[in-house]
Amino acid sequence: LYRQIYEGYRAAILDRRLRARERLPSTRSLAEELQVSRIPIVNAFEQLRAEGYLEVRRGSGTYVARTLPDRLLKPRPISPPGASDRSPQPAFISRRVKALLSGRFGPWLRTGGTFNIGQPPLDHFPIRVWSRLVATNARNAEVHFLHYGQHMGLLLLREAVADYLKSSRSVSCSPDQVMIVSGSQQALHLAAQVLLNPGSPAWFEEPGYFGTRHALTLAGARIIPVPVDDEGLDVSAGIAGGSRPRAIFVTPSHQFPLGATMSARRRLQLLDWARRIRAWVVEDDYDSEYRYGNLPIASLQGLDRDSRVIYIGTFTKLLFPALRLAYVVLPATLVEAFIEAKRATDLPTPTLPQLVLSDFMREGHFARHVRKMRVLCRERRGALVRAIRRELPFMQILGDPAGMYLAASLPPGIPDREICEQAARDGLRIAPLSECYVEDSPRAGLLLGYGGSTVEEIEAGIRRLREITEPVLRRDTSATAGKRPRIQPRTRGLGTRTG
Amino acid sequence: LYRQIYEGYRAAILDRRLRARERLPSTRSLAEELQVSRIPIVNAFEQLRAEGYLEVRRGSGTYVARTLPDRLLKPRPISPPGASDRSPQPAFISRRVKALLSGRFGPWLRTGGTFNIGQPPLDHFPIRVWSRLVATNARNAEVHFLHYGQHMGLLLLREAVADYLKSSRSVSCSPDQVMIVSGSQQALHLAAQVLLNPGSPAWFEEPGYFGTRHALTLAGARIIPVPVDDEGLDVSAGIAGGSRPRAIFVTPSHQFPLGATMSARRRLQLLDWARRIRAWVVEDDYDSEYRYGNLPIASLQGLDRDSRVIYIGTFTKLLFPALRLAYVVLPATLVEAFIEAKRATDLPTPTLPQLVLSDFMREGHFARHVRKMRVLCRERRGALVRAIRRELPFMQILGDPAGMYLAASLPPGIPDREICEQAARDGLRIAPLSECYVEDSPRAGLLLGYGGSTVEEIEAGIRRLREITEPVLRRDTSATAGKRPRIQPRTRGLGTRTG
Repeated sequence: LYRQIYEGYRAAILDRRLRARERLPSTRSLAEELQVSRIPIVNAFEQLRAEGYLEVRRGSGTYVARTLPDRLLKPRPISPPGASDRSPQPAFISRRVKALLSGRFGPWLRTGGTFNIGQPPLDHFPIRVWSRLVATNARNAEVHFLHYGQHMGLLLLREAVADYLKSSRSVSCSPDQVMIVSGSQQALHLAAQVLLNPGSPAWFEEPGYFGTRHALTLAGARIIPVPVDDEGLDVSAGIAGGSRPRAIFVTPSHQFPLGATMSARRRLQLLDWARRIRAWVVEDDYDSEYRYGNLPIASLQGLDRDSRVIYIGTFTKLLFPALRLAYVVLPATLVEAFIEAKRATDLPTPTLPQLVLSDFMREGHFARHVRKMRVLCRERRGALVRAIRRELPFMQILGDPAGMYLAASLPPGIPDREICEQAARDGLRIAPLSECYVEDSPRAGLLLGYGGSTVEEIEAGIRRLREITEPVLRRDTSATAGKRPRIQPRTRGLGTRTG
Repeated sequence: LYRQIYEGYRAAILDRRLRARERLPSTRSLAEELQVSRIPIVNAFEQLRAEGYLEVRRGSGTYVARTLPDRLLKPRPISPPGASDRSPQPAFISRRVKALLSGRFGPWLRTGGTFNIGQPPLDHFPIRVWSRLVATNARNAEVHFLHYGQHMGLLLLREAVADYLKSSRSVSCSPDQVMIVSGSQQALHLAAQVLLNPGSPAWFEEPGYFGTRHALTLAGARIIPVPVDDEGLDVSAGIAGGSRPRAIFVTPSHQFPLGATMSARRRLQLLDWARRIRAWVVEDDYDSEYRYGNLPIASLQGLDRDSRVIYIGTFTKLLFPALRLAYVVLPATLVEAFIEAKRATDLPTPTLPQLVLSDFMREGHFARHVRKMRVLCRERRGALVRAIRRELPFMQILGDPAGMYLAASLPPGIPDREICEQAARDGLRIAPLSECYVEDSPRAGLLLGYGGSTVEEIEAGIRRLREITEPVLRRDTSATAGKRPRIQPRTRGLGTRTG
C-alpha cells in the first residue's frame, strides 16, 4: 500500500498531473477517503519529501515541491517497456572498445564442443576431491575469511606457487614477487596497463594470441607484429623492423598458435635486446606443463639476469576454467605498480578458492592430476594426429608435440574461416588460424583442441571435418588454379584460449 | 639426477665454461665416469637439445650448439639471489599507473580496525548458512560447472538481481541488461574504459569516491571536479564550469563521502543535461539499502527516459567483502561493449559463488540479513553520533542518516590526515575527508565507519580519538589565530570503500 501511494504520487508529479506548488490533501483526509490506515500514507509522503518531490510548509500542509523544474517534467511515462532500445542517436563508446568491437565474432568463441582449444580434460578432473576441499574450507570459514584478501593474493598460495615454479619451471622468484590474479587475461591486461602508454609500441607475435591482442588494444598500444618461425619469435626480424618496443609479449614454451619452442639462441638474443633498449618482456607460459616429446621447457624468466621478464601462468589449463586463478611473477620494481593497477581495476581475488587450491597443491592432488593429464592429453593428441593423417592428408601439422591443441595448415588460399563456421554448425569448435594474424597475409589453417575431447569425439569429429573440407578444397583449388583468393585479416580473434 | 645433469650443463654453457661447438662426452662414457644409469643423462641431453643448447651431429656426437651467440653468454651466474633488485635504471611504468602511484598511501587503507569504512558487520553474517550453501553447491557440482561461465554472469543470479532491483530500488531493467562483475571497482573500471577516451572529460563529485578516481585515472580521463552540496551534485555549477562531459559519475542515494541525498530537482536536471549533451551517467548506488530516517531512495536509473544511466550496485556491502560479486545494469546499447571490455580485462566471473548467492537470495536469507543489518547499523550509528556529540563536540556530523559510515567535519584548517595517521597507530582506521578532494581547498574532517564496529569499540574508539585530536586542535587553533595552515591535497585516496 505504501508503495502504491508513493509510486502513484511520484508518477503524478513526474507526469505533471500534479503541478509544482499544488497542495496535497492531508494524510488524515486521504486515509479517510481511501479507507486505509494513515501510516502508509504518512510514510509515503515522508519518503517523497525526503527525495525532494514534496515540501512541507509548517502549519499549512504538504505541497508539490516548488523547486521541481517544470520544463523537465513531461507528460510521458517513466521507463516504458523497451525504453532502453529507443536511444535515437548511436551511443558513444570509447575508441579502444570500438576497436575491440570492430572484430567479428566467430561461433568457435563459444564454450563446449569438440576441438575447443580452451578446454582441459574436465571429464577427468577430481571433482569429488575438489568439492570436499571446498566444503571443508567453507565449514571452517572464520570471520577473517570474509574480509578483503591481500592485493597480492593469499600468502599460503603464493608460497605454493613459488615452490612449484622454482622446481617445475626454473622460475627464479620469492613469494613476494608472485601476484595471484583472476586469470591470465587479467595478468595480460594489468601488464598492458602498467607497461604501456597509449601509443607505446609493443611487439606481438605474428600470428599470436588474441587475448594478448585484446589487452593491448584496450591499452591503446601500437601493436607491432613480429614474425615467428620454428625457433619462436624472430628477434632479428623484429629489430630489423626498426621499432623500439616498450614491451615484448611472447609465448616461448609453446608459441601460440603455431606451437614452436623458442630456442636458447633466440631467448638469449631477446633478453639481450630487451636489456639494451630497456624493454619489458612478458612471458605467457600458458600450457607449458604438457610436453610429449621431452620435459617442460625451462622458462625465459629463469634466464633473465636483468629483471625484465614478467612471467604469467595459469591454473585454468591445468585444473578447470571456472576456477579463475592464475599468477604473475613480477620483477621487484614492478610490484607496487601492479598492486595499484589491480586496485584500480578490481579488488583482491576471492579467498576461498585460493585456500582450496593451496590445500589441493599441498595434499599432492595437483601434481598427481598434472601427471595423469599429461598421459591422457598425449593419448588424445596421438589420436588426433593419426586421424588427421588418415582423413585430411593435405593438412600439415605444425609445431612441437605439446599443449592441449595443435595447429594444422591448409593449402594456401583455402578459406579457413568458412570451414570453421560450417564445422561449428555440427558442434565442432575449430578456430581458424588466419584469425591469429594482425597483418593481411595470413596462413590458412585450423586450431584443433584435443585436451577436452575424447578419442571417439576426435575421430568422429575429424571424419566430419573431412566431409566439410573436401568440397571447399575442390571448389577453391579448381577455381583458383593460378589465382589465389585472398583471406581477409580480422581485427579480433578467438576469445578465450585460457584463463 | 636428471635435473642435476641438465642444470649443470646448462649453467656451464651459459657461463661459457663450455663453448659453442665444443664436443660433449658420449652418454655412455659419462655414465661410466659418474657411475650412474645412462637414462637420466640421455634425457638431460635430449632436453638440452630440445631447448637449443646442444646439437647432435649424426655419427659424430653431441656438441654445444654453434648457434648460441657467444657475445650473450657471460661468465656471471644466472639469477643470483636478489637479482630482481639490481635493475640499474629506474623501471619504465606507464603514465596512468604512475599517476596512481603518485598518491601517498595512508594507514587507513588497511583492512580491519575500528571505524573501517569498508567493513560491513561481519560478526553478524550468517556464515553457517552460507557455508552450508557453498558445501551443497560444491557437492552437487557437475562437470558443466567447471567450464567458463557466461560473460554476463549466471542467468539465475541475473534474474534474482533484476527482481530485487525492480522491487527495492525502482530500477527498470531486464536480466539481459544485468552484468555480474567481481566488485563495484570492476564495474567502475569497465565503465571508464567503455565510456571514455584518454583525455575525455568526466564529471567527478568533489569530494568524491577515490575508487572512481582511480578508475578514471587509469582510463586517462580528464577528471573535472564538480562540487556537491546538501542536494548532491551541483549540476548548475558543473554546467557553469563550461565543460561538456562524456560521462558523469555520481552517488545519488548517499553521496560519497558527504552523505547527501540527491534531490528530485537535481536528478531531473542531471538527466536532462545528460540527454542534451549526450553524456552517460554512471550511478554508483553503493550502500543505498541502509537508511535510517526513511526508506531507500529510488534510483536515478528508474527516472531515466533516455537510456543514459549505467547503474552499479554491490553485494560486498550487504554481505561480505571476500564475496567479490557486484552488478552493473546497462542500457541495451552498451551490453556488447561491456562484454568486450570484460573479455579483454578478465574472463567471466566464477560460477560457484554466483550459484551460492542465487540460493541465498531465493531462500530469503538475503532479505532477512539486510533487514537485520539495517537495525544493527542504525544502532551502531546512534552510538557513534552520541559518542561524537559527547566527546568531540567541535565536530559537525554531515549528511543524512544512512549507510555504514559517516563524515564529520573538523574546524577549518585542522590537519585531518595527521589525526588519522596517529589514530591508525591505535588500530583506528579513520580516513581523512581531505583525501577525497581533487582540488586544493579541501574540507577537513573524518570518515568513520560504524558498520563493522561494535558499540563498545565505537565508544572506546571515540574516547581515544578525543585524546588524539585535542592536542592537535589546541596547537593549531592557538598557532593559527588568524593564519590557517593549508591542507595539502592528495592525488590518491583511501583505497577500498566497497567492492
